[in-house]
Amino acid sequence: MARTAFSWTEVFERTGRSLRGSEIREMLSVTERPGVISFGGGLPAPELFPIAGLRAAFDAVLREDGAGALQYGPTTGHRPLRELIAQRLGRRGIECSPDDVLITTGSQQALDLLGRVLAAPHSPVLVESPGYVGALQAFRAFELEPVGLPMDADGLIVDGVARWLDGRRSLGAPPPAFLYTVATYQNPSGVTLSPDRRLELLDCATAFGVPVIEDDPYSELRYDGPPTPSLRALPGGEDVIYLGTFSKVLAPGLRLGWVVAPRPVIDRLVIAKQGADLHTDGLAQRGALRFCLDNDLDAHVIRLREVYRERRDAMLDALRECLPDGTTWTEPAGGMFTWVTLPAGLDSRDVLKRALANDVAFVPGTAFHVNGGGERSLRLNFTNSTPERIWEGIGRLARSL
Amino acid sequence: MARTAFSWTEVFERTGRSLRGSEIREMLSVTERPGVISFGGGLPAPELFPIAGLRAAFDAVLREDGAGALQYGPTTGHRPLRELIAQRLGRRGIECSPDDVLITTGSQQALDLLGRVLAAPHSPVLVESPGYVGALQAFRAFELEPVGLPMDADGLIVDGVARWLDGRRSLGAPPPAFLYTVATYQNPSGVTLSPDRRLELLDCATAFGVPVIEDDPYSELRYDGPPTPSLRALPGGEDVIYLGTFSKVLAPGLRLGWVVAPRPVIDRLVIAKQGADLHTDGLAQRGALRFCLDNDLDAHVIRLREVYRERRDAMLDALRECLPDGTTWTEPAGGMFTWVTLPAGLDSRDVLKRALANDVAFVPGTAFHVNGGGERSLRLNFTNSTPERIWEGIGRLARSL
Repeated sequence: MARTAFSWTEVFERTGRSLRGSEIREMLSVTERPGVISFGGGLPAPELFPIAGLRAAFDAVLREDGAGALQYGPTTGHRPLRELIAQRLGRRGIECSPDDVLITTGSQQALDLLGRVLAAPHSPVLVESPGYVGALQAFRAFELEPVGLPMDADGLIVDGVARWLDGRRSLGAPPPAFLYTVATYQNPSGVTLSPDRRLELLDCATAFGVPVIEDDPYSELRYDGPPTPSLRALPGGEDVIYLGTFSKVLAPGLRLGWVVAPRPVIDRLVIAKQGADLHTDGLAQRGALRFCLDNDLDAHVIRLREVYRERRDAMLDALRECLPDGTTWTEPAGGMFTWVTLPAGLDSRDVLKRALANDVAFVPGTAFHVNGGGERSLRLNFTNSTPERIWEGIGRLARSL
Repeated sequence: MARTAFSWTEVFERTGRSLRGSEIREMLSVTERPGVISFGGGLPAPELFPIAGLRAAFDAVLREDGAGALQYGPTTGHRPLRELIAQRLGRRGIECSPDDVLITTGSQQALDLLGRVLAAPHSPVLVESPGYVGALQAFRAFELEPVGLPMDADGLIVDGVARWLDGRRSLGAPPPAFLYTVATYQNPSGVTLSPDRRLELLDCATAFGVPVIEDDPYSELRYDGPPTPSLRALPGGEDVIYLGTFSKVLAPGLRLGWVVAPRPVIDRLVIAKQGADLHTDGLAQRGALRFCLDNDLDAHVIRLREVYRERRDAMLDALRECLPDGTTWTEPAGGMFTWVTLPAGLDSRDVLKRALANDVAFVPGTAFHVNGGGERSLRLNFTNSTPERIWEGIGRLARSL
């Protein structure tokens, strides 16, 4: 029988799903050509990875517990790693037991799992605008509908959140499925939710019955000022769903993150994770644990802070020196990004075309907005380039304006 | 302000989602107590993991390309690993290029990603009955509705599939989103789809426009007879979506699987994977690759076959010797499982209670059926126990009947 070509177009049309890729990841693959200075990705500095320590750790695990590391493991994760995480979080005011911790395949997987257990398809979910693109992508896979909330230099404008929730309640609609925030050194803006607003946000979430997801990959990368307490560590924060990761303080390639959540949420996440990937790589879990037991992760983080602080300072100095009047930017006290707003009349997508011709890359602000906006903005990463490259790259950016 | 407890029950009710855990994984955690001989899990034999070779491979990767292994990587996977997989598959008649291969976080993730890209919520999907529980769990997370298709000793009854599809078409309904099959040494039944039926199934899928997913974790674990060609390797099989894994031939703990699919499907899977976990552990990918380059994986598989063949034979001999008349079972030519049918009047769930009291465990057949059935059946794994333990365990099982 003659074979006719299969129509994948028809199959995809029947699904009714529109899958949107990340503009950022697509753009980054374009900018991998040699000579380009990229402020586009959210990459840590690979020259700071503690390779020797990790090499010794993985070797010890395979020598001493190879069969355990290589066999199927529990969906919740390797218990001694969950104990270590609970202990480390306790020192930062986040009280939890190992049973409150679920190991995930990077924080990205936590977003994916939360999208499926906390929300009905087509429910609204509250996100920051601008906000983390990977979260939008995860939530949209489950047909959730992100609503972008405005921010200022102190983070999410909580008054606005309360008004939005009040308006929705007055229409008799159920609350949104959850509110998602990167409260500290936010991606992409670099801003931090102020201590007062943190308390207001918790009050507001409780009053309206809205679960809060606090994604906290950056708080250990602190360059100035006192640490801001996590939402989860504050009075009234016991029900906050807290996401952490080894990606920014150890190595992202291992794909190790975690969720701390109330037990009923953990129970559902575990069931969802069974279907998603059974469990996270057992060798990677044991390797990271062993690294932390045999090395001083805090000392490593202090070293990261020193190097990244210098890079942030170079970035801010170069912006002051090179960019034209009318350009503004945030001054992040930590994390990996600064957020630049161009003078009126410029569109960062047009600027990107000229910038790429000048061998420098960034992510246009539009990528981070749910419902339009960000045309004059752009995100710059400062952790993946040396001060010299930062100066050179910002010079090229200035010539592209 | 006084804090009231957050109502997670209300939050979960609003989602309208019913998340069902795997009975199997729940049961297995019960049977981890010492002294129990478990035929329940689908575990490979940990004493056969090539730990020394993997230890050398991971050490070489961290020594020579530590920064590459530990940094964020491409969503599609490490290209040299995709090249190796395409090359190995080519030797088994599965012609594909590295661009047709996507690395996944175990095959389980491939099922999760396919559930989201191939089907609209509430679409029917065709599965084998009995069938692989993890696939049902993955598909249900996206609100898909599995329809169980009957099997016999030659696998899926393809005539029945064609009649079902014809009936549906005569009602004017669109075809189901896909058909999912473990065609070779099936989990849980141990049966293999016959060569003739393979060709019929491909014809039928083409005629009705139904994508076929072939999940093939076991075909390298062949103990008797000639290899059965993969659906993907047959004429007319070019559009089959093929899933493979290192879990059964190398080590499951690393969570390394792959999908081979037509380019439009790969493109969508990559977008879905960005949202699910960004990419699979880069160190694990490079470690497995290096192991394959520095060692002879085929020789390792031959060793696995020898040991597992002996265990299968012990299982079949013990069943013949110990189980009462009226009991039947499949005689798998490969893979990890045999499927036992008890005499009329017995329910395997009741038998399990007595078996656990006698310190032996298995999975009742009901767990593998979509729409009821399997009360008289049970699944036995033979790869995770020595012949001595198999004889002892089947003796205990016989005493529980």
